[in-house]
Parts: sequence; C-alpha cells; structure tokens
Amino acid sequence: MSKKTAIVLVSGGLDSATCLAMAKAQGYECYAISFEYGQRSSCELQAAKEITKAADVVEHKIFSLQIGELGGSALTDEHIQVPEEISTGIPVTYVPARNTIFLSYALAWAEVLNGEAIFIGVNALDYSGYPDCRPEYVSAFQRLINLATKKCAEGGAIVLETPLIDLNKAEIIKAGVRLGVNYANTVSCYQAAKSGKACGRCDSCRIRRKGFIDAGVVDPTHYQ
Amino acid sequence: MSKKTAIVLVSGGLDSATCLAMAKAQGYECYAISFEYGQRSSCELQAAKEITKAADVVEHKIFSLQIGELGGSALTDEHIQVPEEISTGIPVTYVPARNTIFLSYALAWAEVLNGEAIFIGVNALDYSGYPDCRPEYVSAFQRLINLATKKCAEGGAIVLETPLIDLNKAEIIKAGVRLGVNYANTVSCYQAAKSGKACGRCDSCRIRRKGFIDAGVVDPTHYQ
Repeated sequence: MSKKTAIVLVSGGLDSATCLAMAKAQGYECYAISFEYGQRSSCELQAAKEITKAADVVEHKIFSLQIGELGGSALTDEHIQVPEEISTGIPVTYVPARNTIFLSYALAWAEVLNGEAIFIGVNALDYSGYPDCRPEYVSAFQRLINLATKKCAEGGAIVLETPLIDLNKAEIIKAGVRLGVNYANTVSCYQAAKSGKACGRCDSCRIRRKGFIDAGVVDPTHYQ
Repeated sequence: MSKKTAIVLVSGGLDSATCLAMAKAQGYECYAISFEYGQRSSCELQAAKEITKAADVVEHKIFSLQIGELGGSALTDEHIQVPEEISTGIPVTYVPARNTIFLSYALAWAEVLNGEAIFIGVNALDYSGYPDCRPEYVSAFQRLINLATKKCAEGGAIVLETPLIDLNKAEIIKAGVRLGVNYANTVSCYQAAKSGKACGRCDSCRIRRKGFIDAGVVDPTHYQ
C-alpha cells in the first residue's frame, strides 16, 4: 500500500518542527513548505532547511512572497519595534493574512500531488493572540478547502491537520522530545541574529523559554 | 468624508475589467492587484496594466508567484494542451487553489490599507466549471476573512464583493459598456499570442465571443 502524502508547513520554529515529526510518526510521506516573506529573522529559513533535512522529507520547497513590501507588521517592517513584553490583544508582530497565504500555497501543492493532508503547527493556547491560529479559523479554512478544490469537488478530501492545537508549549516540547526532535535546530526568536542566536527577550523567546522550564527539558536554545 | 477603499483583482480579462469599473462606480478608491504565476498568456499582464491605467486606480501591484512550477494546469504547464472545445466537468485549465492564493494576497493588502472591500470578478454562470468561482466558495472565503484578520477580530469588516456573480457574459458586457469599459484592452484567450491576439478557439475565447454576440455588442477582440 502506498503511503499517504502530506504537505507540512515548516517555519524553522519549535512548533512546526514538532508538527513535522508528528506527521511522519502518523505514517505520512512529507513534503515541506516554507516561505521567504521579508521576515526579519532570515535564519529561520536556514533552520527550516536543517529541520527538513533531519526529518528526511521527500522535498522542501521555499516560496518567495512579496508581502513584506506591504508592511503592517513588526516582523517585516523595520520601522515597527518588536515588543519585549508579552502583550494583551493582537500584537504588532501579527502579519496580515500570513497563515491564509501560507495555507493557500500548501493547498495548491497538496492538490497537485493528490495529497491527503496539510499539517500546520498552530496552537490555541500559546498562540500570541493571532486570529489566524484559532480553532475557528482552522475550521473555516477546512470548509474553504472542501469548496475550493477540484479534488474535493470531485469527492476527494484534503484534511487540514493541526496536531498541536490543544497543546501548550511544554506539552509540545515533551511530545517532540519523545519523537526525537532536535530543538537546537529551531529558531523561535522574532529578532534573532543572522547567526540564529535568540534575543531571549521578545514575546516568542519568553513563551519558548517558559515552555522548556515547564516541560523540565534542558533549553538548547542558542542565546545571544 | 473620505472615500471607501477597495482592492480589486485585475487579471487582464473581460470580467475583472468590468468588476473594476463597477467598484469605481460604487464610489470606491481602487487599488488593483494582479499576479504573474507562469500563465501562458503573459500579455494578460500587459492588458491588466492598460485597464488599471485607464481606470485611474490609486496603485497597481503585480505579485510574482511561483505556483507555475507546481504544474497541474494547462494554463501553466506547456505539456498539457489547452482544450479547444467547451468541456464538461472541471477542465484542465483549472489552476490548483489559484483564487484562494489570489484572494489571500488581496486580503493582506486590504488589511494593511484598512480597506473596506475586496472585489473579484467571478461569475457562477459562465465560469468554466471552476470550483473556486462558485457562490458557496465565495461565502466560505468571506467566513474565513471574518476569522482570519486582526481587523475583523477587532470588530471591523472586509467585504468580499462579487458583483458579476449572477450575471452571464452578455449581461457583464452590457454593464461594462454602460460604464465605459474599453474591451479592446482586455485579453481572455488561454493561449493568446505575445501580441495579445486571441486564438478564437479555446474555451475562454468561445465563451467571450458568444457573450458579445448575445449582448449585441461589436466584438473588439483582436483575433489572430
């Protein structure tokens, strides 16, 4: 019996590395997809390459988007400062429609490959308040998939899988450690140096550091 | 009172040119968005430039996508022949997830501009059988917008407008003529020459030609 095929979004961060390991553990042949979108921390993509190589994916595609030039986010616009405290509400690091664009590309590739699933490592608990990481957003995208595609219109299915959706950061880390994920390869920092070293102060670094502490796992992050 | 802002998808074809004229007629300040995605008929983009210039849009952005390299469509893969008869079912000219990707970019720009609407010229009657042109697809994308964006999560609205949805080709042409659209500027052919001249034989040419006949409007298309 041939293996099932999945497209897995890999950002270079801790969550998507864990998500990829989970997709593999579920028996999927994995095709990884990453995006260059003018993000400040370009070492994320280097991390994505290392993660996908270690996971032995069938193929890793990196798409260049031009959404950075639209501005509107601290992650793509140098004029907006990355906050160094955990904020309330939707933070300035939110990138307009980012996950919608990412998932659209993944959907196109899934259809071309006649794939069964798309994996994205969003989680509803430690999600920084981004609207496009919520369970109701995931449901709405699944509904869109069902209507948007030739495959689904002709009776097939492409399932949007979010295995991290109900896990907190510590649970994600514990699951990843069990699956052999090397978190030293991952970069979560919103303003990491080109070397990949993390600031230790931004929202994302704080959530990550707390996750390792709560999980009782030694934090392998390279800090500046 | 400041004008409302709309992002309008402009392909270079007849439908989107009409849609842009309708958005303007409704009083919107229009920002046009087009895509280079490896489509065979690159003269479409030249047409899009002429259409948006004639319509005096505030700005016209053209995004380069790399979805052509995924293959899977006669519009982006030279190895798949463009059919010259109107087919049944979903035709080989369907591009996987194309409208989903296009609308995602439009959504990102709409959010950055704090825009009120996105206009797309899909229609449910003469739509070539594409799943991502159906009213139920449009509703699903609207639902996604409501959940995906910071603007909507904070109580705002971005409305997906499809003014052509219930019109047939002849009705679209008659409406466009009333609004002063110069259809000589538009290219609908799936395999137009670099000069912009249409083949007159493909699915899209046949639907267009019949539209002008049914509307009783002289067909200004440049045929080969």
